[in-house]
Amino acid sequence: MIVFLDSHISQSNLDELIRFLKSHGIVYEEIQHQESHFLYLSAGISELQTEDIERFPGVDQVTNSVDEHPAVSSLKDSFSIKINNRVISKKHFFLIAGPCTIESEEQLDKIAISLKQSGINFLRGGTFKLRTSPYSFAGLGINGVEILANVATRHKMISITEVTEISQIEYVSSKIDILQVGTRNMLNYPLLQELGKINNPIILKRGMSSSIHEWLLAAEYIVKAGNPNVILCERGIRTFENYTRNTLDISAISAVKNLCNLPIIVDPSHSTGRADMIKSVSWAAIAGGADGLIVETHYDPTEAICDAPQHIDIDLLKQIVKPLPNLLKLWNKQQS
Amino acid sequence: MIVFLDSHISQSNLDELIRFLKSHGIVYEEIQHQESHFLYLSAGISELQTEDIERFPGVDQVTNSVDEHPAVSSLKDSFSIKINNRVISKKHFFLIAGPCTIESEEQLDKIAISLKQSGINFLRGGTFKLRTSPYSFAGLGINGVEILANVATRHKMISITEVTEISQIEYVSSKIDILQVGTRNMLNYPLLQELGKINNPIILKRGMSSSIHEWLLAAEYIVKAGNPNVILCERGIRTFENYTRNTLDISAISAVKNLCNLPIIVDPSHSTGRADMIKSVSWAAIAGGADGLIVETHYDPTEAICDAPQHIDIDLLKQIVKPLPNLLKLWNKQQS
Amino acid sequence: MIVFLDSHISQSNLDELIRFLKSHGIVYEEIQHQESHFLYLSAGISELQTEDIERFPGVDQVTNSVDEHPAVSSLKDSFSIKINNRVISKKHFFLIAGPCTIESEEQLDKIAISLKQSGINFLRGGTFKLRTSPYSFAGLGINGVEILANVATRHKMISITEVTEISQIEYVSSKIDILQVGTRNMLNYPLLQELGKINNPIILKRGMSSSIHEWLLAAEYIVKAGNPNVILCERGIRTFENYTRNTLDISAISAVKNLCNLPIIVDPSHSTGRADMIKSVSWAAIAGGADGLIVETHYDPTEAICDAPQHIDIDLLKQIVKPLPNLLKLWNKQQS
Amino acid sequence: MIVFLDSHISQSNLDELIRFLKSHGIVYEEIQHQESHFLYLSAGISELQTEDIERFPGVDQVTNSVDEHPAVSSLKDSFSIKINNRVISKKHFFLIAGPCTIESEEQLDKIAISLKQSGINFLRGGTFKLRTSPYSFAGLGINGVEILANVATRHKMISITEVTEISQIEYVSSKIDILQVGTRNMLNYPLLQELGKINNPIILKRGMSSSIHEWLLAAEYIVKAGNPNVILCERGIRTFENYTRNTLDISAISAVKNLCNLPIIVDPSHSTGRADMIKSVSWAAIAGGADGLIVETHYDPTEAICDAPQHIDIDLLKQIVKPLPNLLKLWNKQQS
Repeated sequence: MIVFLDSHISQSNLDELIRFLKSHGIVYEEIQHQESHFLYLSAGISELQTEDIERFPGVDQVTNSVDEHPAVSSLKDSFSIKINNRVISKKHFFLIAGPCTIESEEQLDKIAISLKQSGINFLRGGTFKLRTSPYSFAGLGINGVEILANVATRHKMISITEVTEISQIEYVSSKIDILQVGTRNMLNYPLLQELGKINNPIILKRGMSSSIHEWLLAAEYIVKAGNPNVILCERGIRTFENYTRNTLDISAISAVKNLCNLPIIVDPSHSTGRADMIKSVSWAAIAGGADGLIVETHYDPTEAICDAPQHIDIDLLKQIVKPLPNLLKLWNKQQS
Repeated sequence: MIVFLDSHISQSNLDELIRFLKSHGIVYEEIQHQESHFLYLSAGISELQTEDIERFPGVDQVTNSVDEHPAVSSLKDSFSIKINNRVISKKHFFLIAGPCTIESEEQLDKIAISLKQSGINFLRGGTFKLRTSPYSFAGLGINGVEILANVATRHKMISITEVTEISQIEYVSSKIDILQVGTRNMLNYPLLQELGKINNPIILKRGMSSSIHEWLLAAEYIVKAGNPNVILCERGIRTFENYTRNTLDISAISAVKNLCNLPIIVDPSHSTGRADMIKSVSWAAIAGGADGLIVETHYDPTEAICDAPQHIDIDLLKQIVKPLPNLLKLWNKQQS
Repeated sequence: MIVFLDSHISQSNLDELIRFLKSHGIVYEEIQHQESHFLYLSAGISELQTEDIERFPGVDQVTNSVDEHPAVSSLKDSFSIKINNRVISKKHFFLIAGPCTIESEEQLDKIAISLKQSGINFLRGGTFKLRTSPYSFAGLGINGVEILANVATRHKMISITEVTEISQIEYVSSKIDILQVGTRNMLNYPLLQELGKINNPIILKRGMSSSIHEWLLAAEYIVKAGNPNVILCERGIRTFENYTRNTLDISAISAVKNLCNLPIIVDPSHSTGRADMIKSVSWAAIAGGADGLIVETHYDPTEAICDAPQHIDIDLLKQIVKPLPNLLKLWNKQQS
Repeated sequence: MIVFLDSHISQSNLDELIRFLKSHGIVYEEIQHQESHFLYLSAGISELQTEDIERFPGVDQVTNSVDEHPAVSSLKDSFSIKINNRVISKKHFFLIAGPCTIESEEQLDKIAISLKQSGINFLRGGTFKLRTSPYSFAGLGINGVEILANVATRHKMISITEVTEISQIEYVSSKIDILQVGTRNMLNYPLLQELGKINNPIILKRGMSSSIHEWLLAAEYIVKAGNPNVILCERGIRTFENYTRNTLDISAISAVKNLCNLPIIVDPSHSTGRADMIKSVSWAAIAGGADGLIVETHYDPTEAICDAPQHIDIDLLKQIVKPLPNLLKLWNKQQS
């Protein structure tokens, strides 16, 4: 049972309601984020009628919903975040580019200049890397955070990087605009809960073998904890096919839009693992209704120290971007 | 080793070459279709040099290729078939629609009229159905073939139906323009070999758990046997995700184009199993470079006796078709 | 709705019942095999009560079951087939061995002698091969059938081979004891239906990406058509793991035994694709309750012209067989 | 390149070697655990010969191995840990049982008594639970740790629980004998690295969609960081089959034994998700060579507040355990 509260419910009215629930042995959780305030009653409700609750002042609506991600579902189609005087919303298409790994300030600066010239305003770069082998380069760590913050500020771009541990959140969220949860951490619920306590938008990548349902439940962990600014990112799932690194689940775009109002972007780089396929799947994603792309880009892909085969160069990125205005008309969007 | 022959090689020159191969104990196969004529040497070649063969008159080129589907690979980018005075080629986009199952001449006629009015020239309808349960309706059989032939002729449409057994091929290929191999039969190599002996174009659906490599090897069975008119159809693969019926492998479009010149179309109906997703994935497929779509369509989807949840009605089909000219410009194609 | 008939129902009583069903527009199918005789009513039954049917003479029981494989489910735990004076039943464990491909009478004879000396009475050998590549050796065909029949007769063994086309069934079933349906044909329903018209036991391999439910529906095609002598064979499913050729689904043994009384055997060779794993998974299968094994065996695995890496030699087979009596006690079975 | 060092190499000899490597710009890592001490050279080695290193005093052997998990591979077949005066080694079979979730001291005590009476010495119980839904019960947390420690001490059992965050490790490792990494955290490399700094044995569950290769790389993270006491646990992988919760990859037992000397146990509860299958797959696992089992057990499975359908009761556990001595003879093991 879900009890939606009036956004202006008084503390004393809320207290009264909660006393009632406790006195009946009802287990509940209070969920509050900028768009919604409700109580989720999970046990002890078998004898309860919706009317028993609706009579309390400050209660808006009571549903017997079995919705498993009520915080996500309660988000309205008004996703809209202001970062650095730029508004991100589902009316805009946000194109994110940059290298897999930040190698140096020079490298990132050179890439940022090219991106900016191509009209791209979102700069990604990894600095805490989870590598399958413990002998692979694991990123510049905290130094990379500073490089990314400096470069993004210099070029008036919005910065994005991945966090992999709770202990990184406080510092990274103070320096970087958007935090990313990678595919290996979609099921790391303690991390998600901590990310629910900050306000930065969170890009939540789909687990490589997670169902769409489990993905929305992971988003629920963040939204329920207080941060509604979740951007879902489809990055391919693991299947038997090995011509590509993963299998891009293009239908996830439509599925997510059926199920909630969170924006969904697509990562053509990790889903295919092949530069020669990025154009085809990027256009497919945009025409399929994606709200953005996140593309691994380097001025010289052969030099990238991580994931070289899936990086594209700036020229190819420009080709991909060219028909964007035309493609976005399909869904009444414009580029951010 | 592959020995490409001059298209005008004389019989006596060919005989001489073959005598040489036999005298050296070499196992070979002769492959000939309208575009190519070559010998595939598969055993006994360890001591052979390409020069030993190149000196024979009528030999064009000898490669030590380990290409596993040489007949498919040798097809030029000139796929072009004339059916009923209409040319199908990779410069055209072919939109195929119609019901999963032919129920009656009235039903099919009503659908055909609507499709034709929407500018669609390809009419599909199933009549030999492979159903997971032996208690499900298995189609009208031979009667359905006649209904489809009549309706397509009446409306000047190109007809498509699936064959499921060798014994059906002779009759169906005489009445119907394009024959289809379903996902359950992609590995039915005796059936594929027989389809290599006719000239009708063959739509070869991908096996639900077949890799792209295995799919091209299945096409090789048909092309090698003499029929180069193969159209590949991506229809979704089986994965752990069950929000959709299958998972559309959108990257297969790009993969196939990297690997050969066969056209590839997409089946949004079976890959998603959900009418509410057809628009999104159809546009994705077109923008991703697909050469066509095959969409289950009915004037009243709720009435369809098979696969009802994935049929769309004519109005939705019209919406999907509307931006087609614009989308096809991305790849320099036009609608057939 | 399923109408179970008395095994001695008179023709006139049956006719009367069928007239009643037809007059009410009910769609039904009559299923009869040595153990069971029933009508499966699939449409037009919405207004029907079980009492309406139970009152007819010769009707045993009427159920509103939604069991999707009633013919399979109606089989009692009395699977028992007599072949060449040897009884096969679920009280026995049947160990099948032999080469992937019959290469010559000498080869097969040599293998058969070794197997017989090891106490093995079932001889398998492939002669109609479905190969992923059209350039691979496709077997000796009809000649192989005769070799297998001769060798098995000479050594008093039970013979097994795969059929791949309807046209092979009549001849092969007259010469060979047990016919096999390979993983590529589990969904070839026309083939299954024809195999339902003979009496030879049928080994039905699981499709490489078929669910247990779909597998039992494939068995239903055979049993429903009149042949209850189906032996299921788990041979590994396709997953993301590629250390092994397929992933042996060991829990399928238990699942099948929960769902029906058909015997289930395990193919450790195709499920792992690696000789070094055959012992471990064979013992696992026996301890897990399998009713038999089918193992690719050759006197010199390196010489096998097909699937060499997964063949084991006779010595390893003897090691595997050694603890068999002890392992079978777990499930009160003995070796056949 | 891997440089194995003499176990008694002097510090000055080691310093000399490292100076040499640094002066040539070689990137290396030093790995040391109780069984092995080596340097892993990962970059800058292209011009290096093994002889250049072998000449240094204190160097045992230099290999040009491309082994991706050298620390795991260097472990000898002498896995042997002493906990509470009990030795665990691969000569013993360790049977771990207990509830999914610790609910109270009474509950756990009651279960522990039954287990101990059945000859079981390992007690598991979860208290930090990662639940797919944020509304599910997430365990008793730190209180559960104390309950488990108390109950295990009282009954002289070895205790096992899962840790889900770095911050839990210090306390839990001081109270509990064996720490477990769940399937959702196999890719949580920061957590694994911290677990490499303690001495408690670590049960490392396979990621639900991780390959065997990736699993051994995860183990490498722990062993490389200094803790060689890793016990692998196969718990089923995610496939298309949904009759079972996951698909137990029985061949992983044999694969792991081919690739390294770490012990491997099997979790029949999570791999099947069904109490009615536990006996079959447990016996299969033991006969297949597993070094142990971890089974969810409750005195009343219907009362379990988490994973009820896959818990078994003590009576069924006793049935499973009965043939254990006999089964273990297959692999020359005895029960711990």
